[in-house]
Amino acid sequence: MDKTMILEKQKQAVEILNEKDIDMWMTFVRETGNIKDPMLEMIVGTGATWFSAFIITKNGDTTAVIGSLEEANMKTVGTFNNIVSYLKFGKDDLLKVLEKYDPQKIAINFSRNSSMADGLTFGCYLELMDWLKDTPYKDRFISSEEIIAALRGRKNQSEVDLIKKAIEETLKIFDEVTSFIEVGKSEKDVAEFVIKLVKERGFELAWDEEHCPAVFTGPDTAGAHAGPTDRKIKPGHVINMDFGIKYNGYCSDLQRTWYVLKKGETEAPEEVMKGFNVIKESIQMAAAAMKPGKIAWEIDDIARSNIVSNGYEEYPHGLGHQVGRVAHDGGAMMGPKWERYGNIVYMPLEKGNVFTIEPRLTIPGYGIATMEEIVWVKDEGVEFLSTPQTEIFLIK
Amino acid sequence: MDKTMILEKQKQAVEILNEKDIDMWMTFVRETGNIKDPMLEMIVGTGATWFSAFIITKNGDTTAVIGSLEEANMKTVGTFNNIVSYLKFGKDDLLKVLEKYDPQKIAINFSRNSSMADGLTFGCYLELMDWLKDTPYKDRFISSEEIIAALRGRKNQSEVDLIKKAIEETLKIFDEVTSFIEVGKSEKDVAEFVIKLVKERGFELAWDEEHCPAVFTGPDTAGAHAGPTDRKIKPGHVINMDFGIKYNGYCSDLQRTWYVLKKGETEAPEEVMKGFNVIKESIQMAAAAMKPGKIAWEIDDIARSNIVSNGYEEYPHGLGHQVGRVAHDGGAMMGPKWERYGNIVYMPLEKGNVFTIEPRLTIPGYGIATMEEIVWVKDEGVEFLSTPQTEIFLIK
Repeated sequence: MDKTMILEKQKQAVEILNEKDIDMWMTFVRETGNIKDPMLEMIVGTGATWFSAFIITKNGDTTAVIGSLEEANMKTVGTFNNIVSYLKFGKDDLLKVLEKYDPQKIAINFSRNSSMADGLTFGCYLELMDWLKDTPYKDRFISSEEIIAALRGRKNQSEVDLIKKAIEETLKIFDEVTSFIEVGKSEKDVAEFVIKLVKERGFELAWDEEHCPAVFTGPDTAGAHAGPTDRKIKPGHVINMDFGIKYNGYCSDLQRTWYVLKKGETEAPEEVMKGFNVIKESIQMAAAAMKPGKIAWEIDDIARSNIVSNGYEEYPHGLGHQVGRVAHDGGAMMGPKWERYGNIVYMPLEKGNVFTIEPRLTIPGYGIATMEEIVWVKDEGVEFLSTPQTEIFLIK
Repeated sequence: MDKTMILEKQKQAVEILNEKDIDMWMTFVRETGNIKDPMLEMIVGTGATWFSAFIITKNGDTTAVIGSLEEANMKTVGTFNNIVSYLKFGKDDLLKVLEKYDPQKIAINFSRNSSMADGLTFGCYLELMDWLKDTPYKDRFISSEEIIAALRGRKNQSEVDLIKKAIEETLKIFDEVTSFIEVGKSEKDVAEFVIKLVKERGFELAWDEEHCPAVFTGPDTAGAHAGPTDRKIKPGHVINMDFGIKYNGYCSDLQRTWYVLKKGETEAPEEVMKGFNVIKESIQMAAAAMKPGKIAWEIDDIARSNIVSNGYEEYPHGLGHQVGRVAHDGGAMMGPKWERYGNIVYMPLEKGNVFTIEPRLTIPGYGIATMEEIVWVKDEGVEFLSTPQTEIFLIK
C-alpha cells in the first residue's frame, strides 16, 4: 500500500477513534517476517523485528516505538510522525509514550471474533502485560475489533474502484473458462488453465493457490475450500468454480455455475434449472434486503430460508463475507447464528461495506449450484459490483 | 513443503515429545489466510479458516480438528491421520480428542521468547480457554518453544543441502554485484540489479523486498534493516550488502564488504583494512568456539569483546541467528544478554543448528564493515556452509 493510502486510512482511523470515543489504538507486534499482524500493511506499511508498538491517538498523533536498527527504515517509509527507537529494551520507551497521552481507553490488536483484529500473539500479550504490570494502563485495554471493522469495512470510492477492476478481470477469466471446459478435462486441468492466465496477466491469486480456483464437477464433489482433483468432467455434470484475484492490492471473489449437456439435450434438465434459479433468486432476495443498519445474520436468514423452503439442505457456511485487501475482510459477516462465528454475525451492515453473496445448494445427481456476487452497501441499499450471472452456462 | 518432508518433521516432533516428556503438542489457529502460525507449513502443509487444532501426540498420532468445509482438502493434503470435522462449533469435538488422550502436559503454540513458537493469537487463546473452562486441560498447557527450537533447529542433511544450494546461488549474485558496482551508481541501483537477477532466476527473496538486499555505501549510512537509498557510491566508500534468497523453501542470509579505491590507491587504507580484518578475525574466533552445549550468548561475547578491545563500538544487534525455512529461524540466538532477547540467548547450541555469524563495526569516515557467514553445528565444532570472505573486494 502506498504512503498516500496509508495516511488516508490513518486519518479515517482517527475519525473512528473519535466516533467511538477511544483514546488510543495500539498495534503491538514482533518478528513480523515470521508472523504478521493483518493490519500492518494498511496502517504502517512496513514490518518490525523486535517488540514494537504502532500507536495512533484520538488527537491524530502517530507514534512508532521500534528497535533502533529499524529507525532509518521507518523514517524512509514515512508513515509515522514520532519515531521512538530503543536498543536493549523497549519497556521504558513505551511507558513514556503512554504517560504522555495517559489514555483511559486503549484499543489493542486482539479479538475473539475477528481475525483481522487479532494480530497480538499470546506471547506478545504476556510480554506487554509484564512491561505494564506496575502501571494503570494494563487495565485500560479493549479489543480493537470495532475500529478495524469500521476501518476495513467502510470502503471509499478509490477502494471500490480497485475491487471493481479486480472483478472485471476475474469475470473475463470466467468467460475464458467457459470456452475451455469440455468433457474429459479434469478439475485440475481447469485450475491450471486459470492459474496460467492469472500469472500471464501479472495478477495475484486472492487466496492460497491450493484451492484458488476451487473447481468442482459433478455429484459427490468435495465441500468448499477443497482443491481441484483429477475428477473428469462428464455430460450431465453441474460444474462450479470459486475464484478471485488480487489486483493492485484489492481482491475479487466470485463463483459461477455451468451445466454440461448430455447427448440430445439443448438445455439443462428441470432439476438443474430449479436449483440454479433458487440460487439466483436467493441472491436477489438477500441483496434487496441489505442496507445500513440491517443485522448481518438477518440477511443470511433470508437466503437460507428460501433455499430450505424450496426443499434443499441449508448451506454449511455463511451467506457472505466482506472483501477488500484480503478475501475475508472487515468485521460483520452475513452468516447464521452458529457459535463458530462469534459476534460477527450480530453486527450491523454499514455504508461502504463490500460483501459477497454466495449461497449454495446441492442438486442431487448433478452437482452443486452456487453463484457468488459482490455488492457495495450504499445509503439506501446495495449496488452490484459484479454483473450477476442470470443464466446457467451451458457446455456442449 | 511436500508431504514427505512434513511427515519426516512430524516424526522428528514425536521423538522430541518423547525426549522432553510432553504428551501432546497442539497448534490452535483460525483464518490462516489473514494471520498464519509460522509452524503450519512445516507440520500441516495447509491452512484453516475456522478455529482449528492440529494435534501431535507422544505416541505418534496426528489429529486435525477442523471446519467441515475443509475436510476434503485436509484429506487431499494427507498429512494428518485423524480428521475430526465440525459444522457449527468445534468445542465438543476438541474436548473429545483431549479426553481420548488425557494429556498431562500439552505444549501449545505460544512463547514470550520465540516468534516461531508464538502463533496463537490472544483472541484464539481466550476462545480456547473458554472452551476448556470446565475441564482440567486448561491448567495443563506449556509453551511449545522447546519443541519448536529443537524441531526447527536440528537440521538434517537434506535441509542443509538446500541451504547450501541457496548460499551458492547467493554468492554468485554477490560476485555479479562486484562487477556491477561503480562510482556514481546508487544504493537503489545495486538493489534493483540484485532483485532483477533473483527474479530472472526464479528465486524468492529471503525477507521483505523493501530491505532485501539492504545496501549501504559510505559513512553516515543507515543502520541494518533499512532499505537502499539514492545515496551514490563514491571513491573512498566502504560498501556492504545484506542479502539472501529462498531456494526450494530454504534461505540464505549473507553479507559482504567492498571498498571503492580513490584515485591513486591500489589497496584499501589502513583503517579500512583494520576494520575488515577485525570482523574477519571475530567471525573465526566465534566459529572456533561454537559446539553443542555452548550457551548462545557466550559466542556473541567472544566476537563482541574482540571488536570492543580493538577500539570499536559494539554492534547494536546479536552476532547470529539461525537460518532455515525463514531467515530468522529456530530457538537459540547468539546475542548479548539484553532484555529484548528474552531467554533465547541463554539456550545452548545444539547439533544440527545452522547459524549466521554477522558482527559489524563502523570505520569512521568510510562506512560499515560487516560480513555474514553461515555455519552448521556438528559434534565437535562447526562446518562453514558459506565460503568466508577473506579479502575486502576492491572496486576500481
